[in-house]
Amino acid sequence: MVDKTNGSTTGTAAADDRETVADKTIADKTVADMTVGIVGLGLIGGSLARRLAARGLHVIAWNHRDHPYAQAEADGIRCVASLAQLAAAKPRVIVLCNPLKAMPAILAELKPVLDPAATTLTDVGSVKGMVREQVEAAGLGECYVGAHPMAGNELSGWQAADPALYDDALWAVTVRDDTSYERFRDVANLIVSGAGNRIIVLDDTVHDQAAALISHMPHVVATALINQLVDDPNRNIAAALAAGSWRDMTRVALTDPNRTRAMVDEDAANVESLLRAMAGRLTAVADALRDGDDGAMTRFFADGQPFRDYKMMQRSDDVRYEERDVAFDPSHWQTELLASARRGEHVIGFAGDHAVCVQVRSAV
Amino acid sequence: MVDKTNGSTTGTAAADDRETVADKTIADKTVADMTVGIVGLGLIGGSLARRLAARGLHVIAWNHRDHPYAQAEADGIRCVASLAQLAAAKPRVIVLCNPLKAMPAILAELKPVLDPAATTLTDVGSVKGMVREQVEAAGLGECYVGAHPMAGNELSGWQAADPALYDDALWAVTVRDDTSYERFRDVANLIVSGAGNRIIVLDDTVHDQAAALISHMPHVVATALINQLVDDPNRNIAAALAAGSWRDMTRVALTDPNRTRAMVDEDAANVESLLRAMAGRLTAVADALRDGDDGAMTRFFADGQPFRDYKMMQRSDDVRYEERDVAFDPSHWQTELLASARRGEHVIGFAGDHAVCVQVRSAV
Repeated sequence: MVDKTNGSTTGTAAADDRETVADKTIADKTVADMTVGIVGLGLIGGSLARRLAARGLHVIAWNHRDHPYAQAEADGIRCVASLAQLAAAKPRVIVLCNPLKAMPAILAELKPVLDPAATTLTDVGSVKGMVREQVEAAGLGECYVGAHPMAGNELSGWQAADPALYDDALWAVTVRDDTSYERFRDVANLIVSGAGNRIIVLDDTVHDQAAALISHMPHVVATALINQLVDDPNRNIAAALAAGSWRDMTRVALTDPNRTRAMVDEDAANVESLLRAMAGRLTAVADALRDGDDGAMTRFFADGQPFRDYKMMQRSDDVRYEERDVAFDPSHWQTELLASARRGEHVIGFAGDHAVCVQVRSAV
Repeated sequence: MVDKTNGSTTGTAAADDRETVADKTIADKTVADMTVGIVGLGLIGGSLARRLAARGLHVIAWNHRDHPYAQAEADGIRCVASLAQLAAAKPRVIVLCNPLKAMPAILAELKPVLDPAATTLTDVGSVKGMVREQVEAAGLGECYVGAHPMAGNELSGWQAADPALYDDALWAVTVRDDTSYERFRDVANLIVSGAGNRIIVLDDTVHDQAAALISHMPHVVATALINQLVDDPNRNIAAALAAGSWRDMTRVALTDPNRTRAMVDEDAANVESLLRAMAGRLTAVADALRDGDDGAMTRFFADGQPFRDYKMMQRSDDVRYEERDVAFDPSHWQTELLASARRGEHVIGFAGDHAVCVQVRSAV
């Protein structure tokens, strides 16, 4: 079973429990002597570096500007002047926390200095297929395991960095059929034992489709809603009548449209397909309203019930997640861990060489 | 100009200002001696009755059950045992605050006892075309002026009734070409001077289209989103990755689907048309993504900018709304007040017989 000292096995979502995680020094031998390299000390990278250092890992970091270095050093983070110095320290894992647009340049700079035998490369990018292509293009594909932490807020930069940003966080870890199990395990251990977080193991395609479903496509829908209002001759009347439902459904359309567009462009094929599916659903309801099709309307309003039930369960005050150990065949660990994720299981630790301990967290 | 004592002319949205409105006894002679009948002492009707009584109006009420009567009487609301007694008191305005499904039965009961020469009928229903049809069917069309207050919360019933529910509220008042100006003015005065609220003057069609745009259609879109997730083979993974954008865009899909369906059915033609328009917008973005149509994508993310700018302005700390007097031709008061609403002007009082004082509140 998982090491109970890592703080993520409580099974409750209570804030009290979570708040102790960030500053807890871990005893887990698998990561206590691990050196982790962090590229980019912004909100995401800075928060991770501070959390890992606070929990007892050796953290070495590089940032494109050195303004956070004094504070980072005070937090126990060793800061270096170049990516070459970072790579020379031979960290077990380097986490690329730089902006996606800087990825090709940083990978090109790392390629000649990184020792693939010593270091595994991972990242925190919100799309996984595109990052893997860039890593492959840089000739670093063999070292790479993808990652995407579900953490963030509306702030940015080192000044906003906070170890608690990762409290109770879930990470998607993305692998391929040819991903080395040892490299995967190093990244997974860094997250579950090092950061005290949960993981689900996916492939790039499943990750990017799911991200399109729950974020990229809905951003387009929200934008289409405000466009619909602006195009209406009675838009000032509609704006006057707008209340909570409109406010919530259009909130994400109010953020920087260029950032939204970049996110959509990076996941274009998945967003395209989901937009067509949504257009089909809306047209089907329109047809049912035109035809007075009671059966179709009843089904439309019933189909989502499993999600309503799931949210109701999540909101209950004393939600407790079932925990179990899941053994997997070492020769098919990727597909078996993906199947576990499909069951709504989140990995909170390893239970031997080829078994994980999971919580059933998102079974809709 | 409007009577400055009615509390709604401050021009700011500051909570400090609003909180004083509910309990303020009004001096406005146009409504101080007005008797108002309230049918239904639930959240909406109970809050209105308490607010009007607190502000010095004579309020008489009937409820289908008498459990709130003791508390209501203590609040200065005269409670009666039947609709016949309510009508016999000849209130200047009766506000129908009963559930929409009870409307036909209540109208049928009112018809033989209501004195059309003494009383104007209004309501608080969230759809206006259907209510007017019911009022017409009951033979009470000549007495009727529609109304829909933008007030409410997730609660219901007399126990949740709170005069502050109407703080800074906007009401849509719906009229037809044959609506009596005197009846309109009684209802409008009840709202602006009696309740201390704002109004926009609409016709039923414009109201129901706008309500479909900002509420009924988005509820269908939110429902389609959760259906899309539930239908996905990777739904548990998508649910795991879901964050703030998904939560906000699907919140209204979690409420009672039967209530949502009833709302959609009551405004079916408008919802149908808007769903087709939205399906067209989503398909156009899908096509642009497929074709790499940079121009179309740029336009899509730019089209809603006036709404973003409007929300930004609204959120500023010291938002002040321009006030002006708007005179109108008595023979075309309906269309001229509708034109005022289209300019984003909200009526806060009368300025003579044929002019209103407005605040420019929702100019997108």
